[in-house]
Amino acid sequence: MAEKITPRVQDFSQWYQDIVLQAKLADYSPVKGCMVIRPNGYSIWERIQRELDGRIKKTGVRNAYFPLFIPESFLKKEAEHVEGFAPQCAVVTYAGAKDLEEKLVVRPTSETIINSMFAKWIQSYRDLPMLINQWANVVRWEMRTRLFLRTTEFLWQEGHTCHATAEEAEAETRLMLEVYTEFAENVLAMPVWPGRKSESEKFAGALRTYSIEAMMQDKKALQAGTSHNLSTNFAAAFNTQFLDKDSKQKLVHQTSWGVSTRLIGGMIMTHSDDKGLVLPPRLAQTHVAIVPILAKAEHKARVLEVSDKLAAAIQESASVRALGYDVGVIVDRDEQKQAGWKFHEYELLGMPVRIEVGPRDLEKNQVVITRRDLGQKQFVSLDEAPQVVGQMLADMQRELLQKARDFREANTHRVESYDELKKRLDDEGGFFVGAWSQSRESEEKLKEETKATVRCLPLDKEYNLIPESGPCVITGQKGNNVRAVFARAY
Amino acid sequence: MAEKITPRVQDFSQWYQDIVLQAKLADYSPVKGCMVIRPNGYSIWERIQRELDGRIKKTGVRNAYFPLFIPESFLKKEAEHVEGFAPQCAVVTYAGAKDLEEKLVVRPTSETIINSMFAKWIQSYRDLPMLINQWANVVRWEMRTRLFLRTTEFLWQEGHTCHATAEEAEAETRLMLEVYTEFAENVLAMPVWPGRKSESEKFAGALRTYSIEAMMQDKKALQAGTSHNLSTNFAAAFNTQFLDKDSKQKLVHQTSWGVSTRLIGGMIMTHSDDKGLVLPPRLAQTHVAIVPILAKAEHKARVLEVSDKLAAAIQESASVRALGYDVGVIVDRDEQKQAGWKFHEYELLGMPVRIEVGPRDLEKNQVVITRRDLGQKQFVSLDEAPQVVGQMLADMQRELLQKARDFREANTHRVESYDELKKRLDDEGGFFVGAWSQSRESEEKLKEETKATVRCLPLDKEYNLIPESGPCVITGQKGNNVRAVFARAY
Repeated sequence: MAEKITPRVQDFSQWYQDIVLQAKLADYSPVKGCMVIRPNGYSIWERIQRELDGRIKKTGVRNAYFPLFIPESFLKKEAEHVEGFAPQCAVVTYAGAKDLEEKLVVRPTSETIINSMFAKWIQSYRDLPMLINQWANVVRWEMRTRLFLRTTEFLWQEGHTCHATAEEAEAETRLMLEVYTEFAENVLAMPVWPGRKSESEKFAGALRTYSIEAMMQDKKALQAGTSHNLSTNFAAAFNTQFLDKDSKQKLVHQTSWGVSTRLIGGMIMTHSDDKGLVLPPRLAQTHVAIVPILAKAEHKARVLEVSDKLAAAIQESASVRALGYDVGVIVDRDEQKQAGWKFHEYELLGMPVRIEVGPRDLEKNQVVITRRDLGQKQFVSLDEAPQVVGQMLADMQRELLQKARDFREANTHRVESYDELKKRLDDEGGFFVGAWSQSRESEEKLKEETKATVRCLPLDKEYNLIPESGPCVITGQKGNNVRAVFARAY
Repeated sequence: MAEKITPRVQDFSQWYQDIVLQAKLADYSPVKGCMVIRPNGYSIWERIQRELDGRIKKTGVRNAYFPLFIPESFLKKEAEHVEGFAPQCAVVTYAGAKDLEEKLVVRPTSETIINSMFAKWIQSYRDLPMLINQWANVVRWEMRTRLFLRTTEFLWQEGHTCHATAEEAEAETRLMLEVYTEFAENVLAMPVWPGRKSESEKFAGALRTYSIEAMMQDKKALQAGTSHNLSTNFAAAFNTQFLDKDSKQKLVHQTSWGVSTRLIGGMIMTHSDDKGLVLPPRLAQTHVAIVPILAKAEHKARVLEVSDKLAAAIQESASVRALGYDVGVIVDRDEQKQAGWKFHEYELLGMPVRIEVGPRDLEKNQVVITRRDLGQKQFVSLDEAPQVVGQMLADMQRELLQKARDFREANTHRVESYDELKKRLDDEGGFFVGAWSQSRESEEKLKEETKATVRCLPLDKEYNLIPESGPCVITGQKGNNVRAVFARAY
């Protein structure tokens, strides 16, 4: 039998680690801070890639691949950028059995190396917009790491685009924030709050950073994706210019945007429970496990025959086809393991739907179907089962999102004063919405005194910050305040 | 207009570089030996990944991801392995603004780091076979690099498997060689010769290495993929053991196997011509470019309408659906560029099929279709065009393979003596088949004196080496000789 999973109420962080290790999603590696993504976890990443890659390509972006190594001098060309990333860099100093003349940084992000190519490829307005994405590994030396959420090496996609005008760059930045929002909600079933980052939390080298923020089951926030308007900052550093229609040389306006394997951690902490992983059907490789009850020899042939036919019928059913993704169905013929053990294992692994096919139920022409997140056994006639399964998968995807949304709404509170914020952060946790003066000092004070941060500044439909008439929650200052979300975060 | 491509007969190596750069498949980067794979090239890699990944998974292998960094001590655990790879390693010596206690090697291949995890995950025979693959970047410091063919960093897949017995490991090694062979021929349309590598050419740490060898248009060989039987060499170094059914602790028997972005270079040098890239349809993202002739305003609406209808009809046609892959069709509405310029551009980019829709042809209810590799215009009635296109793509895929096979056969020769081999290598080039004594000295002599190498030892159906009764081509030694293929290689 598998080890026991620590209950969430007892130790949320241990619960998370238990799930990741016991469901064999990932493992610690012998290299400090680096994780191994095991097949059960990697198949989730493959689904994320497929779903997101399609959405990115639909906006006209194409994939490419740039070098892992960045000459140290490149990183230094954009002043804020190097200041932000230098402390986290891993550096190659010798290679091919020789000391290198110029040290090579293992990419923490690729704005600089990509700009060196953009500067070469872009000559005229006809070359714009240039819309590129890459799926790659990046390295940021972290002191405290946590599987999927914060690792020294992680996998991600990073989009990099060039535009003729500031307006187009801002539009692209927002478009990708919207793509991430839709993707997080409809694929990961993880509701997110899109917003703008404060000045001190924006990307090193950006004019403006947008992010999507999700609430985990411990009510802490997780930044799940970012989209940056880089303005002409990197273009100026690398001289990425184009000849415009008016025959003038101009710097391109750029964006970059990314999500990473961190999404897997966010998805786990949004949906899973004390029995193990709960996986939104869109992220599953196998969706239905049929467990034939093989205890009695005389029923074996019949039970297996019905199971196989059911598996085929599920994949043919109208409700399954309507889902729009491949549905994997397995018949678990293993006779070494008992049915009870298998049920437990499928719960741990997050199999969305489990079907028991037993001789006694077959006498009544029925099977037992259990949806992973609900956990209640449902008796369904054999004829209706294929149709029910497809409907169940659609319901599960939708209801996981709704449940997470309800949880977030129930744990999002309006606050008026700093005392109230401090008390409720400790007593209840959650997201706290209130007026903020945007001063850097107040942000630092908040962080130091409460370990909470300004997660984002919510936006209206026109992407404007939302004015608040009341005094700043932290400083009490009146006038010119905007709405902010305060929370403790991963 | 694009620059001119150097003809193959004039300078094959320059021709290759011209195609890669002008078709925007890849570019040189500012990091020595590292290339940038541009969208046109990366889309080919995406097709390769999709096709090969499906084949690998069908054999029961699952994808995972292991750390980029390998502790230096790990690499040293297998003596032959470190000897083979140490001169090519790139090494991280400081990270997070501190010197590292143990240096980290950027993976040149992952046998060692993966074995450290296998040793943890594998306890019993029930855990076997363990079949893992990863798609990743690797780094091998190279002195002389060439786009796609030999770069400091490259993308690849590396499979790593563990088995209970030597027989199973050997069977897996051969199975993957067969998967690579089928894939190279049916997807890349690149005929390959599977065989065993000589002792001195095998993978550092392997018991036995198999490879697939292809012939390029300059008659040189390209090693296009390798599959290694690692025996218990790495298992012994990392103590990767399992408790067998007989209650004894035993070392696992392992394999590893890989192909890389080098395949793109091989595919280019197999099919392309002096006009540009020739792409097997299975590797194309877009298969058909419809070019409406828009010179005269009065015909524009009609020509565009017919073009759009034709595009839709092609994707619906039975012959296109029968291909088994998505066929991309574009209608080139660009009015800034002339038709002649477009034809030239599509030839350079390797668009498999081009269709001209012009007002004069439409009067005769016909269009002009040109298959990229044949280059001859064909008048086809509008009604038949959709069906013809699908057939054309199927024919092109098959005939590219046959043409390359014919070329290889025409340039493969039997040789009896060293003098003959030397003379014909210089005069004709190609693959030379003859008897070989397998002595290391003769191999070194061959390399030194002719720059040719033993590419592989061909195998019979049972994977046995093929005995040759004549004297060794290089040494003249009689008895115990086997068949070998000698050639100059990339």
